Amino acid sequence: MKSEFKKISVIGLGLIGTSILHAINTKQKELVTTFAFDANSKHREIVSEMKIATFVCDKIHDAVKDADLVILAVPVGSMNSVAKSITSSLKKGATVTDTGSTKNSVINDVNPYIPTSVNFIPSHPLAGTEYSGPKSGFSSLFENRYWLIVNDKETDQTKKLANFFESLGSIVETVSAEYHDKILAITSHLPHLIAFTIVGTASDLETDLKNDVIKFSASGFRDFTRIAASDPIMWRDVFLNNSEAVLEMLQRFNEDLSDLQKAIRKKQGQKLHSFFSRTRSIRKKIIEAGQI
Amino acid sequence: MKSEFKKISVIGLGLIGTSILHAINTKQKELVTTFAFDANSKHREIVSEMKIATFVCDKIHDAVKDADLVILAVPVGSMNSVAKSITSSLKKGATVTDTGSTKNSVINDVNPYIPTSVNFIPSHPLAGTEYSGPKSGFSSLFENRYWLIVNDKETDQTKKLANFFESLGSIVETVSAEYHDKILAITSHLPHLIAFTIVGTASDLETDLKNDVIKFSASGFRDFTRIAASDPIMWRDVFLNNSEAVLEMLQRFNEDLSDLQKAIRKKQGQKLHSFFSRTRSIRKKIIEAGQI
Repeated sequence: MKSEFKKISVIGLGLIGTSILHAINTKQKELVTTFAFDANSKHREIVSEMKIATFVCDKIHDAVKDADLVILAVPVGSMNSVAKSITSSLKKGATVTDTGSTKNSVINDVNPYIPTSVNFIPSHPLAGTEYSGPKSGFSSLFENRYWLIVNDKETDQTKKLANFFESLGSIVETVSAEYHDKILAITSHLPHLIAFTIVGTASDLETDLKNDVIKFSASGFRDFTRIAASDPIMWRDVFLNNSEAVLEMLQRFNEDLSDLQKAIRKKQGQKLHSFFSRTRSIRKKIIEAGQI
Repeated sequence: MKSEFKKISVIGLGLIGTSILHAINTKQKELVTTFAFDANSKHREIVSEMKIATFVCDKIHDAVKDADLVILAVPVGSMNSVAKSITSSLKKGATVTDTGSTKNSVINDVNPYIPTSVNFIPSHPLAGTEYSGPKSGFSSLFENRYWLIVNDKETDQTKKLANFFESLGSIVETVSAEYHDKILAITSHLPHLIAFTIVGTASDLETDLKNDVIKFSASGFRDFTRIAASDPIMWRDVFLNNSEAVLEMLQRFNEDLSDLQKAIRKKQGQKLHSFFSRTRSIRKKIIEAGQI
């Protein structure tokens, strides 16, 4: 599939930004000119050396001024300042999207700086790894993964954007910002918070015990450490910007955990068994849904 | 490496028991006769059809009476009744071990039924998957994984047993039962409890939301559902039999989670960032320790 966007700007050269550049290079049949920018000059240098963008620009203005499509792939806490800094550089008729993990906050932070002649269509690729930085990207990151578009109505611009995301390998669906933030709170934000917590609890153990926890990390803990190795700035921003939905899901989680804690203390085997049988069936449904 | 045990009995034909049989068949250079038993006749039938044991016995007595080594690979809640049922069948000079995930409880449950002429050496392979049952086993399960032996002093018997576990591909270490139960509480039992809880919380959501949680399960949640798909009986027994260490670690975890919850509510970005940076370093150490 070919992209209808011929000049694409990628702002933020971390895992997502560089993966978009890799994917454009690998998957686009038609010629696309890409403009890359990152506030960190070392990241710009690395991307220049990798030769994955047509132009790596030292100024954000130069990276967006000619673009049909501008993709903001920065931590959600930086969306506001990035939007401010590009508002006067955007080309008439351009489309701006973002890849942030929270949508209500990004809409509030970005929308005021989008000129009326420009379309802002928030989006979020449900794809990632525990690695970060410009060297962590790869072209197949978005393959067979959902890329959610937040928009109330389908327009020519959303169709063009959906086509572009599909050209990178994604499956596109449309959701509301509120619904997005609720879904992500339980599928991604809370699991990350929990993983950060348990690995933090382990790192506070006495030295001998901690060293042996690392040595004998059985599969449960090992999986948690992978999640808890994710980018600290990205995740700080996620929790600050989706706090309402995260705190609501956390409350439900705490209630369930208290129930299980009580069942363990009171040695209620039947209760534990039926709870653990129920969770097993959720896994089966995810496998059936093809999201493994 | 060859095993000094020539007649090996495997009691319990789930993931661990059948993986031991597969591994003996694949890795043992010398002839070993294996005797297999499971209280569930369907499991015995499946193992008979798979032809992975020399003999599949319908009576536990026949499965242990000639064995040099008896391996109890049943859920820890069944160790007591299994030990009772084999006490009068064990051969003089035989070694009995187990593969249970809790060690204090297994020692209490099994020791009283071990004749003085028999050696009981508790053990635990730190290996597993989310699958269970006789068809889930495979020969490489123990490769490069720790197999912990619980024994106060090294004897000829513990050396023989360590050699056998090494012949299946494991790295053997000796620990005390108390230390084992504490390490496993944080590396395995608590992560499983948390994963069961969060997947349970998700399964209680309203139907629409729940369906979309399954559909859009981002990588965090997907990993948790894998852990939460583990065998409900095994895990019920683990929590009932290591409740003290699990509840202690759970208390520490709850304190840390409350701290992070407060930091999110109060929008304390610096606190979140420094916590998330600390957990990232634990992952690096695990990768360095080669346990990935």
